[in-house]
Amino acid sequence: MLKLAAFFELVIVVVWLGVASVDGVFVKYQTGSAVVEGKLNVHLVAHSHDDVGWLKTVDQYYVGSNNSIQGACVENTLDSVVESLVRDPNRKFVFAEMAFFQRWWFTQSVEVQERVRKLVDAGQLEFVNGGWCMHDEAAVHYIDMIDQTTLGHLAIKQQFNKTPRAGWQIDPFGHSAVQGYLLGAELGFDSVHFARIDYQDRAQRKGDKSLEVIWRGSKTFGSSSQIFANAFPRHYSPPDGFHFEVFDDFVPVQDNPLIFDYNVELRVNDFITAAIIQANVTRGNHMMWTMGDDFQYQYAESWFKQMDKLIHYVNKDGRVNALYSTPSLYTDAKNAANQSWPLKTEDYFPYADIINAYWTGYFTSRPGLKRYIRSLSGYYLAARELEFLVGKRANGSSTYSLGDALGIAQHHDAATGTAKQHTTNDYVKRLSIGVTEAEAVVSSALSCLTTNKSGDQCKDPAVTFSQCRLLNISFCPPTEEDIPEGKSLVVVAYNPLGWNRTEIVRIPVNYDDLVVQDSSGNILETQYVSVDNVTSNLRTFYTEAYLGQSSKQIPKYWLIFQASVSPLGWDTYFISRGATKGKRRVGLLSVKDSPQNETIEIGPGDLKMSLSSASGQLKRMYNSKTGVDVPIQQSYLWYGSSTDGQASGAYIFRPNGAPPTIVSRSVPLKVFRGPLFDEVHQEFSSWIYQVIRVYRDKEHAEVEYTIGPIPTDDGVGKEVITRMTANMETNKMFYTDSNGRDFIKRVRDYRADWNLSVNQPVAGNYYPLNLGIFTSDNKSEFSVLVDRATGGSSIQDGQVEMMLHRRLLVDDGRGVGEALDETVCIKNNTCQGLTVRGNYYMSINQFGDGAQWRRTTGQEVYSPLLLAFTHENLENWTASHLTKGSVMDSSYSLPPNVALITLQELDGGSVLLRLAHLYEAAEAPQYSTLAKVELKKMLTGKTIKQLKEVSLSANQEKSAMKKMTWKVEGSTGEEPTPVRGGPVDSSTLVVELGPMEIRTFLLKF
Amino acid sequence: MLKLAAFFELVIVVVWLGVASVDGVFVKYQTGSAVVEGKLNVHLVAHSHDDVGWLKTVDQYYVGSNNSIQGACVENTLDSVVESLVRDPNRKFVFAEMAFFQRWWFTQSVEVQERVRKLVDAGQLEFVNGGWCMHDEAAVHYIDMIDQTTLGHLAIKQQFNKTPRAGWQIDPFGHSAVQGYLLGAELGFDSVHFARIDYQDRAQRKGDKSLEVIWRGSKTFGSSSQIFANAFPRHYSPPDGFHFEVFDDFVPVQDNPLIFDYNVELRVNDFITAAIIQANVTRGNHMMWTMGDDFQYQYAESWFKQMDKLIHYVNKDGRVNALYSTPSLYTDAKNAANQSWPLKTEDYFPYADIINAYWTGYFTSRPGLKRYIRSLSGYYLAARELEFLVGKRANGSSTYSLGDALGIAQHHDAATGTAKQHTTNDYVKRLSIGVTEAEAVVSSALSCLTTNKSGDQCKDPAVTFSQCRLLNISFCPPTEEDIPEGKSLVVVAYNPLGWNRTEIVRIPVNYDDLVVQDSSGNILETQYVSVDNVTSNLRTFYTEAYLGQSSKQIPKYWLIFQASVSPLGWDTYFISRGATKGKRRVGLLSVKDSPQNETIEIGPGDLKMSLSSASGQLKRMYNSKTGVDVPIQQSYLWYGSSTDGQASGAYIFRPNGAPPTIVSRSVPLKVFRGPLFDEVHQEFSSWIYQVIRVYRDKEHAEVEYTIGPIPTDDGVGKEVITRMTANMETNKMFYTDSNGRDFIKRVRDYRADWNLSVNQPVAGNYYPLNLGIFTSDNKSEFSVLVDRATGGSSIQDGQVEMMLHRRLLVDDGRGVGEALDETVCIKNNTCQGLTVRGNYYMSINQFGDGAQWRRTTGQEVYSPLLLAFTHENLENWTASHLTKGSVMDSSYSLPPNVALITLQELDGGSVLLRLAHLYEAAEAPQYSTLAKVELKKMLTGKTIKQLKEVSLSANQEKSAMKKMTWKVEGSTGEEPTPVRGGPVDSSTLVVELGPMEIRTFLLKF
Repeated sequence: MLKLAAFFELVIVVVWLGVASVDGVFVKYQTGSAVVEGKLNVHLVAHSHDDVGWLKTVDQYYVGSNNSIQGACVENTLDSVVESLVRDPNRKFVFAEMAFFQRWWFTQSVEVQERVRKLVDAGQLEFVNGGWCMHDEAAVHYIDMIDQTTLGHLAIKQQFNKTPRAGWQIDPFGHSAVQGYLLGAELGFDSVHFARIDYQDRAQRKGDKSLEVIWRGSKTFGSSSQIFANAFPRHYSPPDGFHFEVFDDFVPVQDNPLIFDYNVELRVNDFITAAIIQANVTRGNHMMWTMGDDFQYQYAESWFKQMDKLIHYVNKDGRVNALYSTPSLYTDAKNAANQSWPLKTEDYFPYADIINAYWTGYFTSRPGLKRYIRSLSGYYLAARELEFLVGKRANGSSTYSLGDALGIAQHHDAATGTAKQHTTNDYVKRLSIGVTEAEAVVSSALSCLTTNKSGDQCKDPAVTFSQCRLLNISFCPPTEEDIPEGKSLVVVAYNPLGWNRTEIVRIPVNYDDLVVQDSSGNILETQYVSVDNVTSNLRTFYTEAYLGQSSKQIPKYWLIFQASVSPLGWDTYFISRGATKGKRRVGLLSVKDSPQNETIEIGPGDLKMSLSSASGQLKRMYNSKTGVDVPIQQSYLWYGSSTDGQASGAYIFRPNGAPPTIVSRSVPLKVFRGPLFDEVHQEFSSWIYQVIRVYRDKEHAEVEYTIGPIPTDDGVGKEVITRMTANMETNKMFYTDSNGRDFIKRVRDYRADWNLSVNQPVAGNYYPLNLGIFTSDNKSEFSVLVDRATGGSSIQDGQVEMMLHRRLLVDDGRGVGEALDETVCIKNNTCQGLTVRGNYYMSINQFGDGAQWRRTTGQEVYSPLLLAFTHENLENWTASHLTKGSVMDSSYSLPPNVALITLQELDGGSVLLRLAHLYEAAEAPQYSTLAKVELKKMLTGKTIKQLKEVSLSANQEKSAMKKMTWKVEGSTGEEPTPVRGGPVDSSTLVVELGPMEIRTFLLKF
Repeated sequence: MLKLAAFFELVIVVVWLGVASVDGVFVKYQTGSAVVEGKLNVHLVAHSHDDVGWLKTVDQYYVGSNNSIQGACVENTLDSVVESLVRDPNRKFVFAEMAFFQRWWFTQSVEVQERVRKLVDAGQLEFVNGGWCMHDEAAVHYIDMIDQTTLGHLAIKQQFNKTPRAGWQIDPFGHSAVQGYLLGAELGFDSVHFARIDYQDRAQRKGDKSLEVIWRGSKTFGSSSQIFANAFPRHYSPPDGFHFEVFDDFVPVQDNPLIFDYNVELRVNDFITAAIIQANVTRGNHMMWTMGDDFQYQYAESWFKQMDKLIHYVNKDGRVNALYSTPSLYTDAKNAANQSWPLKTEDYFPYADIINAYWTGYFTSRPGLKRYIRSLSGYYLAARELEFLVGKRANGSSTYSLGDALGIAQHHDAATGTAKQHTTNDYVKRLSIGVTEAEAVVSSALSCLTTNKSGDQCKDPAVTFSQCRLLNISFCPPTEEDIPEGKSLVVVAYNPLGWNRTEIVRIPVNYDDLVVQDSSGNILETQYVSVDNVTSNLRTFYTEAYLGQSSKQIPKYWLIFQASVSPLGWDTYFISRGATKGKRRVGLLSVKDSPQNETIEIGPGDLKMSLSSASGQLKRMYNSKTGVDVPIQQSYLWYGSSTDGQASGAYIFRPNGAPPTIVSRSVPLKVFRGPLFDEVHQEFSSWIYQVIRVYRDKEHAEVEYTIGPIPTDDGVGKEVITRMTANMETNKMFYTDSNGRDFIKRVRDYRADWNLSVNQPVAGNYYPLNLGIFTSDNKSEFSVLVDRATGGSSIQDGQVEMMLHRRLLVDDGRGVGEALDETVCIKNNTCQGLTVRGNYYMSINQFGDGAQWRRTTGQEVYSPLLLAFTHENLENWTASHLTKGSVMDSSYSLPPNVALITLQELDGGSVLLRLAHLYEAAEAPQYSTLAKVELKKMLTGKTIKQLKEVSLSANQEKSAMKKMTWKVEGSTGEEPTPVRGGPVDSSTLVVELGPMEIRTFLLKF
């Protein structure tokens, strides 16, 4: 009846706006542009950077709670991105963090899942990186990097049958060599993209258009593990004015002539201006615009609507070509351009975003968390081995939740120590839940193994083993318990390594008349040390803080004995009360207060250490077998943290400029000697306690430090280091590892890639340690290995220092918004600064001989003996249990240059096996050779029916992996070919590994 | 090949969360609940309150630009709501502002439009209110309210064939009687919903569960125009904690047991607690939760996701019933409950949200804008008449954009003066663009009419008429121009009223020897007045500020003559240079400086006004015809604005507590006398100038005030009033109009609905005026009519005051964030406070006789003569033009109690006709009677082929409108039946109208 032709009327309105005519008001945007040769191509890469925990916990980020801290809801991002992608088949989006994606995926309807599968198949939704998180690259171990990436990649493979092609490490604070070659090329990635490189480096690279490079992170592999690396010219956000999140203050492309503020030409010009700015620092005709930021696309349409219009009108304008793209498509275009690219080797550490702002504090931040992660990483490896050995169970506990928690913990605000405290608590809670479940798996598996059952046979394990995660503070209920008449404390020790090992076992007990027998009935040599007061106090406070239980009686002694366990095997030790009191007190503690003016030498074996009884400090290390003799001093110092301008904080290490304060020049010490080891207790201050242990049968000294609570009542934040000063001419050089794998030569105050302007002579020379650090002169090497991620350096020739703990009073302005001031509380809000206890290991070797110690010991530190306890009558136990055993042929062990780094049964029965050669090319002549592993002997008793070599993350067959070819500036093309193992013969099943090679297999039994 | 049963693993995770089992992780929410009898029903009404301009302009709000001011993008809301509604057919959303919806609708694809039509058909998307905007209710005229509502309603009708059922005035600052009965019941609305009523009123209504009432806003119509009115217990936002906008800090319903912070029971309990709180102040079992707020649903899914879960889990819990609903469904449920409701009459003014915060300042805020809107409202009516008379043209100018701009300007932050300055500028720009186009329509139509052409015949009008919108400051180029020998200034005067009228024409000229002839060749009586300095200065400054042109020469004189024009007709006047200079100077100005100690009487006709020449002030009004004689004093005063605590601002009037300051007790004055009128110029101060004009042929005095720039260099904001103190016993009572229609009795310091606690004895007694205000005692009435929306009161018996201008220095904390400090600038940033010029009209009448003057004069003020100018030889013009004419039968005019308020050709050829009876029942015995309009005579020369009576907004047939029946507390059911006109006989076409009746017709010719 009524007809109000409003459209007609709107057309009328156009008249006064000076627009002659409109064809229609609805505009169908042409968004399907591809690359156009001969034009500047602007690749719009739509993304949201979703931290797997930072200011909020991972689940708070996912569901969008706690928005007062940060408005962020990843569920919104995924919901709305999918809707937006469906709206226009030309739109694309990349997603990285599978921990989030999996949370989302499993709550979607079948219809939505199907829709998403189509989007993935069509290339509209592309997974980049595809790990569980976007892991850090400084404070994480390569095994964890592999594990967390595998977790994500297998999920993608299973759900979408896709393999990610692009590394997307846009936010981590510097980039490691291992990332580039191992978690890059070896994953099958063609490229890696990131935002954060040193500001001086970036300035130079912008100037000479070398932001994009061919990166060869591995000395050993060179061009065979290279990757195209794209460092962004700014951050991972879009050019100014092109940030289109809902509520953002941007100028929308207003192309409706019927309303005010029509601005198409203006916005097209803005776009082209920004493109030209970037073209000026970019090689070739392709540039990437990272169209996103932290937790963006809460309402994806807000972004896509603008990008649709920009693509449409910019391409209509024609001066440049804009297109929806992804890192893979971008890399294809770069590759197709057939240009030459600069060569980049080694890594991108350390990272400073501006002057005086070196992000080297986070190498050490939250050392307690870092140790927890590292110890669980080793435990996770062992637990998966055991889970595999007895067969994964369809119901009940599994190692999944520990893997999930560890995957999350590798995030670049988790392991780094740069999350808020409440988020850190969440990480720890997840790890704790995970390890509790893994302990049940381990207990059950050990019960099965020791009763020689497997699979369904051991559904209800006869024995539940206790395990002691707080052994380091002398808390271990089963060993402290009374051992009744006729019973023994049964200790099952599992060796997750592929080698035989002999290891010191150290447990708290309440008796000094204990008899330790091995599985053959031999009585073992033992030694006792009184539990010291520092340990007692730690135990009292922390068991209350962590377990909520007021301390039981403190155990009196440490009982120490040596266990020898076969590779991937177990052995059993029985500890019983002695027949006669006092009789068998072999190795009872011997206390000796240090006399004045004397040098005290300790070490029952080859290694000797001399300390000054006057100063209480180390003077010399000497190895009687190798003859290496190094005068060496060790002390604790602290840097006062800057609060002026750029402060020291969770991320940034910025000392206040004064030389570090020496904690003590005169240290009271006690010496304890015994048959198995000697130890020296040094009390540097009321808050720094150190024990040096020199074992009869080890080549190194073990240093156990206890640091904290760091006093701050003087208003000064403190960053505590241990500094070892050896009498060596190190010529500015030192070596640090990359994620626990390759060692990289560092030169003080120097960068290979640019002429370094030094503004932070300490912080700017710090590097991340995961395995350790060493120096050398032409005679000797001095090596230190760590038990967790740690920052370290050599600030003077002959020196090595490591930052072990930090307590700071202000935030450093990089977003976390909290001072790194860790405290631990018990009831009544009684809190104190966190005390950290840990170990490092020092060795002296003849020049060229250190590698073998470092590689072997590194593996032992990573994978300690796994101890499980129960109580039983010795005879009963031996009658009904296998007291020792191994999955390996009893005559076999892995070669000393190969480690087993994954042995895991996947769902569906496939078994994931990874073997890693431990040496770089030329690192140690004896070991940097082709190694062979005989799988049949390694996994005796199991029949391998099928073996398939796969990529590092096991998501594609090795043989199917393709590599792009790149032209590299100045490259002759005549590089030495690295040694790699050949194909595995399916009948002999011998795996060869060249130096640094990691080979990944899927097995069927 | 690989199968990672992540789902299985997630199930495993559940174990440690203590959840026994999950059926699946995807939950299909049961959201389809209907009303459940016997339970508390929580109606979730999803809405977004989208101001049609406020902190940003309407288009900025629509496209989402200028988000630094306010994060708001209505396009996002509509885009995302549609997506969310499609996702679940149980979800519902209501949308109110058609100015926004139309912007969106016309940029959608056909597919989206089809999808939306389905949503509307299914009741998922419901239009509420449905006007162009959510109009204000205090500062707007009922004709504008009708027009803007019609604009929206016809769009909805055309696009969706729907008629809105619910009034949704959730934000306006108090509620008018006219809103309740006219823009409510007469639109066919069953209900009206709003948030803002006086805080004392609300407290009482919460206490006795009388927030929801049956509202009978009209004395005349009583129950026949009643409506269910729902005042919300708080604001139009949800209960605390249920505000779910993206980025908001709320606690999401976390129902995934596989991740942390599962909280379903907690959130269900929160919901039920909030429901019980509201139940305690709500009658019956149904309550409404307004699930929205200002510019919400930017990402609608953020809201719907939470509501889905709440409905699902709350209903699973079963204690209350939650459902998606709309105001209509809610009203249905309330109606079905068959309860009794309290009765509410009159209106909800004034509004205070807290103590001392009376929102009565906005009745006057931005008086310049208010006048511009009002003058264009009258012009729009006239322009549409003319557009209809000559036939609407398919191309070229139309009145649409003026209607659109006026529609937007009725918004409750537009006409109110409570928008930011830049937004106000945008409103004015739209109006200016609209009136420019309407002027072209008028010019073209007058050309057609005067050449007796219509339709296509007058595509290219021979004459372009000039019109003078700045006549009030003596700027009118065509009249100021030289009149060459042999040419005349041709003035065509169009009378948009349905009555004959005789009106003063007043134009600036540069000669004093002009001869004015009417269309019959008669020479008319003229009078001249020199242009005074205040006007000259205004002209100079404002033509530069508004037109960007430095002033031409100031015209010397005002030429005044009387024009008589037939109803809906025009007449032509010719102004030529006199044959002999000085000869025909009839009525030349006579200046007289006032002598001391004398009373000066002015007024060439019946009305006389006496002024004291000593004080310069008014003393008395006397009408020699009626004998009414009222001593009356008039002066200007200002309230100092409070800045202490609650400040006076754009919304709030809060004087600082001191008595208002009298601007001047002794006023210099000048008297000008002539045959047509006398006028007195009074200079109250350097910034207040007043001219009183008393015409020979009018019963009232016209007061022209010029106020500004209001000085604020003393740091005091000022709110300027004119106060008239008559010697009358008014006994606290006065009368103010409701939107220019009904008069409502006001009693000082009193509210009919509750026992008023007086905290603001001035601001709390202010009421909005759109037509005027009057007082009476048992002998006389004293009436004042206004030319724009104005605040007024009677603070002492016998007094009437009106606030005419305000200039304030601080914001009043209600969101606008600017002080109401209007300035006007010319080049070089030379700015001054806004000067306002306007008129009001005073009349004295015998008791009971004032209504006739008020109703007739009110209509004349609203619809002045429309003047159009050109230059032509008189003889040529008369030879080729119809110099006068009318669409009406020459013997016919509308009855004096009926006004034509709409005559508009719609697209498609239908003609919209509205006739309004101007008197309330019993208002004036002679006129409060059934009136008859003979359409055939009214529109002679046009043949009405079809006539259909429709609802007020013309979106449904009158006969099809249904009314709900309500039980009202204390209602006897025996109310007098109002007089209403009967059905229109299609052959005689006589329309009857009872008192206050407005009848709307669609005609076909």
